Amino acid sequence: MQLPRINRLTKLIGIKNPKAKAGMPPGTLIFMGDKLTEKSQVDLISYNSGDIIEFCSKSSEDVLEQLSPDRVNWVNIDGLHNVKLIEEIGEHFKLHPLLMEDVLNTEHRPKAEEYEHQIFFTLKTLYNLTDVDITYEQISFVLGKDYLLSFQEKEGDLFEGFRDRLRQTGPGKNRARSRSADYLFYRLVDTIVDSYYIILEKVGERIDVLEDEVYDEPTKKTLHDIQQLKRELIFLRKTVYPLREALSKITKGEYHLIKKDTLPFFSDVYDHTIHVIETLETYRDLVTNLTDMYMTSISNKMNEVMKVLTIMATIFIPLTFIAGVYGMNFQHMPELNWKYGYPAVWGIMIATSIAMIIYFKRKKWL
Amino acid sequence: MQLPRINRLTKLIGIKNPKAKAGMPPGTLIFMGDKLTEKSQVDLISYNSGDIIEFCSKSSEDVLEQLSPDRVNWVNIDGLHNVKLIEEIGEHFKLHPLLMEDVLNTEHRPKAEEYEHQIFFTLKTLYNLTDVDITYEQISFVLGKDYLLSFQEKEGDLFEGFRDRLRQTGPGKNRARSRSADYLFYRLVDTIVDSYYIILEKVGERIDVLEDEVYDEPTKKTLHDIQQLKRELIFLRKTVYPLREALSKITKGEYHLIKKDTLPFFSDVYDHTIHVIETLETYRDLVTNLTDMYMTSISNKMNEVMKVLTIMATIFIPLTFIAGVYGMNFQHMPELNWKYGYPAVWGIMIATSIAMIIYFKRKKWL
Amino acid sequence: MQLPRINRLTKLIGIKNPKAKAGMPPGTLIFMGDKLTEKSQVDLISYNSGDIIEFCSKSSEDVLEQLSPDRVNWVNIDGLHNVKLIEEIGEHFKLHPLLMEDVLNTEHRPKAEEYEHQIFFTLKTLYNLTDVDITYEQISFVLGKDYLLSFQEKEGDLFEGFRDRLRQTGPGKNRARSRSADYLFYRLVDTIVDSYYIILEKVGERIDVLEDEVYDEPTKKTLHDIQQLKRELIFLRKTVYPLREALSKITKGEYHLIKKDTLPFFSDVYDHTIHVIETLETYRDLVTNLTDMYMTSISNKMNEVMKVLTIMATIFIPLTFIAGVYGMNFQHMPELNWKYGYPAVWGIMIATSIAMIIYFKRKKWL
Amino acid sequence: MQLPRINRLTKLIGIKNPKAKAGMPPGTLIFMGDKLTEKSQVDLISYNSGDIIEFCSKSSEDVLEQLSPDRVNWVNIDGLHNVKLIEEIGEHFKLHPLLMEDVLNTEHRPKAEEYEHQIFFTLKTLYNLTDVDITYEQISFVLGKDYLLSFQEKEGDLFEGFRDRLRQTGPGKNRARSRSADYLFYRLVDTIVDSYYIILEKVGERIDVLEDEVYDEPTKKTLHDIQQLKRELIFLRKTVYPLREALSKITKGEYHLIKKDTLPFFSDVYDHTIHVIETLETYRDLVTNLTDMYMTSISNKMNEVMKVLTIMATIFIPLTFIAGVYGMNFQHMPELNWKYGYPAVWGIMIATSIAMIIYFKRKKWL
Amino acid sequence: MQLPRINRLTKLIGIKNPKAKAGMPPGTLIFMGDKLTEKSQVDLISYNSGDIIEFCSKSSEDVLEQLSPDRVNWVNIDGLHNVKLIEEIGEHFKLHPLLMEDVLNTEHRPKAEEYEHQIFFTLKTLYNLTDVDITYEQISFVLGKDYLLSFQEKEGDLFEGFRDRLRQTGPGKNRARSRSADYLFYRLVDTIVDSYYIILEKVGERIDVLEDEVYDEPTKKTLHDIQQLKRELIFLRKTVYPLREALSKITKGEYHLIKKDTLPFFSDVYDHTIHVIETLETYRDLVTNLTDMYMTSISNKMNEVMKVLTIMATIFIPLTFIAGVYGMNFQHMPELNWKYGYPAVWGIMIATSIAMIIYFKRKKWL
Repeated sequence: MQLPRINRLTKLIGIKNPKAKAGMPPGTLIFMGDKLTEKSQVDLISYNSGDIIEFCSKSSEDVLEQLSPDRVNWVNIDGLHNVKLIEEIGEHFKLHPLLMEDVLNTEHRPKAEEYEHQIFFTLKTLYNLTDVDITYEQISFVLGKDYLLSFQEKEGDLFEGFRDRLRQTGPGKNRARSRSADYLFYRLVDTIVDSYYIILEKVGERIDVLEDEVYDEPTKKTLHDIQQLKRELIFLRKTVYPLREALSKITKGEYHLIKKDTLPFFSDVYDHTIHVIETLETYRDLVTNLTDMYMTSISNKMNEVMKVLTIMATIFIPLTFIAGVYGMNFQHMPELNWKYGYPAVWGIMIATSIAMIIYFKRKKWL
Repeated sequence: MQLPRINRLTKLIGIKNPKAKAGMPPGTLIFMGDKLTEKSQVDLISYNSGDIIEFCSKSSEDVLEQLSPDRVNWVNIDGLHNVKLIEEIGEHFKLHPLLMEDVLNTEHRPKAEEYEHQIFFTLKTLYNLTDVDITYEQISFVLGKDYLLSFQEKEGDLFEGFRDRLRQTGPGKNRARSRSADYLFYRLVDTIVDSYYIILEKVGERIDVLEDEVYDEPTKKTLHDIQQLKRELIFLRKTVYPLREALSKITKGEYHLIKKDTLPFFSDVYDHTIHVIETLETYRDLVTNLTDMYMTSISNKMNEVMKVLTIMATIFIPLTFIAGVYGMNFQHMPELNWKYGYPAVWGIMIATSIAMIIYFKRKKWL
Repeated sequence: MQLPRINRLTKLIGIKNPKAKAGMPPGTLIFMGDKLTEKSQVDLISYNSGDIIEFCSKSSEDVLEQLSPDRVNWVNIDGLHNVKLIEEIGEHFKLHPLLMEDVLNTEHRPKAEEYEHQIFFTLKTLYNLTDVDITYEQISFVLGKDYLLSFQEKEGDLFEGFRDRLRQTGPGKNRARSRSADYLFYRLVDTIVDSYYIILEKVGERIDVLEDEVYDEPTKKTLHDIQQLKRELIFLRKTVYPLREALSKITKGEYHLIKKDTLPFFSDVYDHTIHVIETLETYRDLVTNLTDMYMTSISNKMNEVMKVLTIMATIFIPLTFIAGVYGMNFQHMPELNWKYGYPAVWGIMIATSIAMIIYFKRKKWL
Repeated sequence: MQLPRINRLTKLIGIKNPKAKAGMPPGTLIFMGDKLTEKSQVDLISYNSGDIIEFCSKSSEDVLEQLSPDRVNWVNIDGLHNVKLIEEIGEHFKLHPLLMEDVLNTEHRPKAEEYEHQIFFTLKTLYNLTDVDITYEQISFVLGKDYLLSFQEKEGDLFEGFRDRLRQTGPGKNRARSRSADYLFYRLVDTIVDSYYIILEKVGERIDVLEDEVYDEPTKKTLHDIQQLKRELIFLRKTVYPLREALSKITKGEYHLIKKDTLPFFSDVYDHTIHVIETLETYRDLVTNLTDMYMTSISNKMNEVMKVLTIMATIFIPLTFIAGVYGMNFQHMPELNWKYGYPAVWGIMIATSIAMIIYFKRKKWL
Repeated sequence: MQLPRINRLTKLIGIKNPKAKAGMPPGTLIFMGDKLTEKSQVDLISYNSGDIIEFCSKSSEDVLEQLSPDRVNWVNIDGLHNVKLIEEIGEHFKLHPLLMEDVLNTEHRPKAEEYEHQIFFTLKTLYNLTDVDITYEQISFVLGKDYLLSFQEKEGDLFEGFRDRLRQTGPGKNRARSRSADYLFYRLVDTIVDSYYIILEKVGERIDVLEDEVYDEPTKKTLHDIQQLKRELIFLRKTVYPLREALSKITKGEYHLIKKDTLPFFSDVYDHTIHVIETLETYRDLVTNLTDMYMTSISNKMNEVMKVLTIMATIFIPLTFIAGVYGMNFQHMPELNWKYGYPAVWGIMIATSIAMIIYFKRKKWL
């Protein structure tokens, strides 16, 4: 059976095309990733507890004009391949060249870094479009005093539900809008970490299915699926594990841009991240178990095959020998002339068979 | 043989239905767990060294009226699905929204967290209703200056024996009632951790039984049971391990709500938790051993099967060949006309067999 | 072959009968262990550099009267099942209820704990009565300013040699008696740790024997013995490992009851403990190796069995076929009438066999 | 099949010829490595934001004369076997004897060490000349106040692109030249670490190819390649892992020669190093998986071989027995004289075969 | 094949004869080791930058008289079994009883310990007399203000080359003699650690040889050699690993007897020790690989054996059956009378064989 190829490693591992950068000075902005979309746009959501303004454009200038210092300004950029756009925004907010470089390198591991007037935070969103493949998208955040920049590889994100909440007006519905930019930052990170649970659930279901298969009818396909799953867990771990460290830095409360009453919320996200990591570890143990089970299952089967062969051979080989003896053509073979020679031989043969069967019963092979 | 299905992973691992929460602001109270009971109720035990008052109601208001500040007030809530009830209690005691959320999420890992006027503590009770399945119930505690809240998923708990002690009156019998709320908190946590030993004992007995099976008559069922046990140890570990960290936080004496003379008691619970964890690690090693043993046992059996086959085949194949030779129909085969040809052939056959048997004896196959 | 049962796990692991304690308040004294002896007694050795007084009684009162504050008072209690006796002594020395509880729980892990006026220290003595089974006895020490309490499960201990030294009188022989209670404490702990080496030596000898067996003639018994050894190492490790931490606490010099010039002696015991632990780790690696060796040995044997089968079958199956051909009864088979048909067939058969044998020689199967 | 030898271990591991040094005092300069080139030369690039001077000679004196204290002086030495040359430079810059020794020992692990007026830093460049073999070259740096020494084993390096940038003149193109020597140091280390990604990519591609082979047609060659890869990962890890620690020392900001605004750049290199290490760990897991897969693949194949044998034997052995029975020469065998005896036997034989085939279908062996 | 016995474990592991010590007070001097030599002697090298005096005697008194306080006095003792000699030297230098005990216990793990006026340091020299066996000798150092004591188990050491350097006189050749006792101490430790590389190199060569064997012609001997190597690595690791900690203590600069300008030299030895340990870890990985390879190699071979058997059996079993059919003696077998019956059967047989061979070619078994 021709099995589907496992996802190419070089794509998954995130080490593409570093040569392009060789010799370039740090801070040279080059998009290092797959171009996932043609479009690129900037949109702004600017709010305070009173109202909310939304604005969207393909040009950074238009959007940057709309920023107002007393409100929370959420600038979202879709499409990192538009380096010029990113550069203009970077210049406006005075982003450090290394920060800009990290935004454009979509294969960065999750991390948090404090700059003089900003916090940089990058992590991965996981999408599980089909049941099997997991797609990774990098999202980077830059938190300033009254703004939050979010850089996404392509349009479409997990934040639509939250945007709807922000848009709600009316008495008692402005709670989400009454807090500062660090709370907005928390809400977006929280949404992403929560979405990891959906992936965990799907992976858990696949482990369940594979466990049943291994117990019932393990095929080569089963092994292939176990291996595929093992790989995915390795990459999931690689994606989520550094997030723990990044969030830990924030929860320690050393970043002055994160207000004290927002800290417990980040502790909460941190707890969820630990939970996700522990679950991944548990999955890993379970999938390792699965491989062992598969091996044992194959050994058990081979044992069974051997038993059938041995039983058949052990019963019939002596019988065939007896038949062979009386098929010899010696002139002087007295038994051949006995009247009951033939039935006697049958008797011997049947007795031998029964003895064998009893022996195998005793050995619990039957 | 059709083996019983292993418990569904997604249920055990505690990652159900996170989608329901997506987009909800933190602090939105949703019960995230299985509804284990229909009932929900609040009961209060309020005591000091002098007397004890008990009160039980389905309404939180009735109970909250009975609280008196100079006594230890133990408010126990059964049935987390009654979100409104939880919410009323939360408001009365001014619980932080994230604390409330953790109470309602029955899939939380054990943890201790200090809030301004409270300590939040959550852990799992383990029940071993049948011999095989372990059931997890989450219990959360909120310790305040003169009160302890305990949130349980369903009615019925391990604390009945302790309640009886509290109720004892008479001279010299009020020792349990003469201490403050943090001591009450300790007693309940201690009771839960002590109950883990019952689970450990049952698991130990099952390992004993499986070891005997593996040595004597390993079947496919044995392997299934070993795997089931391995899984359970993985989940037990996941349940107990974070408790160590949570208790460690308390024993460090940084929480001002835990009085200095209660600290040694928490050190004691901490020691027990370490003991439980070490025992789980030992079990893990033993069960890994079991799997190795099972594999070796199968290999040994296959070896034995192969030996029987080889002995039978090796003895009879040459004999059958000899019989075949003298079954040929050549016109000129002098041996066929020899008078003692037939007995001579028998002689050769028997001699060959004996030679083989001696060879096998030397090889220690027989 | 019916192999002897491996020691029951629940006995070894030390998690017996915790139910008896459920609901009891901490400090309720219950003996939790196996009653190893019927007797119970208290003996006192009270000495200074000048003289030594010994006293032994079944009643604690008699002994406690003999204590004198200016001397080193070593109170040794045999038989923990006599709870009343322990309780009286505990009350006299004002021992903390949790300390008392730990003394009576013979399944405690080694630990050191400082109380206001005492240091509590508990560890295991290992006896190797037969060559195979290791017996664990718990010894707890309570060190006070001028006294040392030692609690043993049963009479008979490793300290007899040291007692003889204490009893020696005459010039220059009072060195052991000229130091304070913490030195006495050190000497007893040192004696116990030294005795671990005897166990290590016996275990080492058993590994040697098993290695020879695995190389020469591995049987099912060998595997059983390896497993037994593996288990014992797991339990030994569990017994000795926490001792490291306990001694480390003492060597840090934070306990004021341990004088500064006794500290180097405790460092020395600590070094020995590390050595014991490292040796146990080495043993563990070696025994894991043994299991691998056993598996390889079985595979090698199976390979050999398969080769014999294959050689026999491969040589004789074609020959039997040839014989079968000329055993057919077709009327028109010209070869049958050839004069040299029969010798020719023999020639073909012999040539085939030789070809096969050469082939196997080339393959290095012969 | 004769497989190519795996690279000799003693060469890879870097423990050659230590005997040569025995008895020599520390600081005796001996070149310990393979002489990779015949040539040896010193070249100097001296620049400030205004201009750039380049100078190259075989004699150290010529070059050292050209140094000017107010500029950044980059002295690059190719060919470590010219000990005299190294010694002269060492004397001029007052290098510590141990530093000199480390420069000449090409088998040193990456490390950073601060001396009074210099920072010493050594690491490996990896070249992947063919697709399979990785070549290691050691580069050592000595950073002083206004100079950077770089010691290379042979001519030719990764810095040519950067040299071209330095040489660029014209307005706005002197950015690279406007910073101090520590920035130059960073740029060179950064270039080397970036080049590791090319190796990672090639290794990733080889894992991909091997995974396909293992799934499709694993041969002995595949196993050989997996082992070769495993070895290379072991050595890569050994090469890169200590770099983490070395860079960590620099990023902590304790070295006064690294200016504060250069630190973020070193943090960036540090992040890349962590990424490289994590990727190596992932590769390790994947290659371990590959070996498991290979083993399972072999077991599966053996199983298949066994099944074919068992099916053939089990079908034909009974048939051959039946044929043998009616080949016996008894005088009284009534069946032989039956008119439809022969077709009846064929009927029995065919029925038996069909029964067997149905049995195997049920067992899913066919 | 009778393989040579692996070195006895109890000898290697260093846990001999602890019983002899039981009951002895600490500080009782007993030699605990194997008596490797009959001789015992003390030699003194006393030098300053001006001159050097050497003196050798069997009596400690003679030597101790020669000590002069203003010079570096290196007192070397060969033969630890001469307890009296050791004791006299110990008394003269006022060594702590525990230090004396550690000197005499040749099974001590490497360690550094600071006493009031001395530093005690013990480690192992490794000799590789034959190619296979590694011999361990313990060397202990006691560093004082102006003296260094070195205790060796037997005469003959690695320091002869260094002694020759010390003896060199003439201008510019007294560099080695111009430094203080801590530098002497460093030089001796450095010499020992450097000698570890010779062992590493030999072990590396053996791994190379075994790798070739495993790929080409693995025999039972190969497995035995791998196991032997594995054991040796376990013991090497046990010997070298604690040295890291011991040297780390010195390099921290807390020992006042080690002067500040000697510290970099100890850092250098520390680096070498880390290198040795990392190389041992790499070897461990490689030898583990070897075992896996061996197992796979055996599986591959078994597979090949099985294939030959299956091919032979599968081709000939049906042919033998056909021959058997026409060997039956039924009266009515029309084929027997056909003119071309016999050639037709041959035709069928050949066709069947060819079909089989094509089938096996497709399966890639041939």
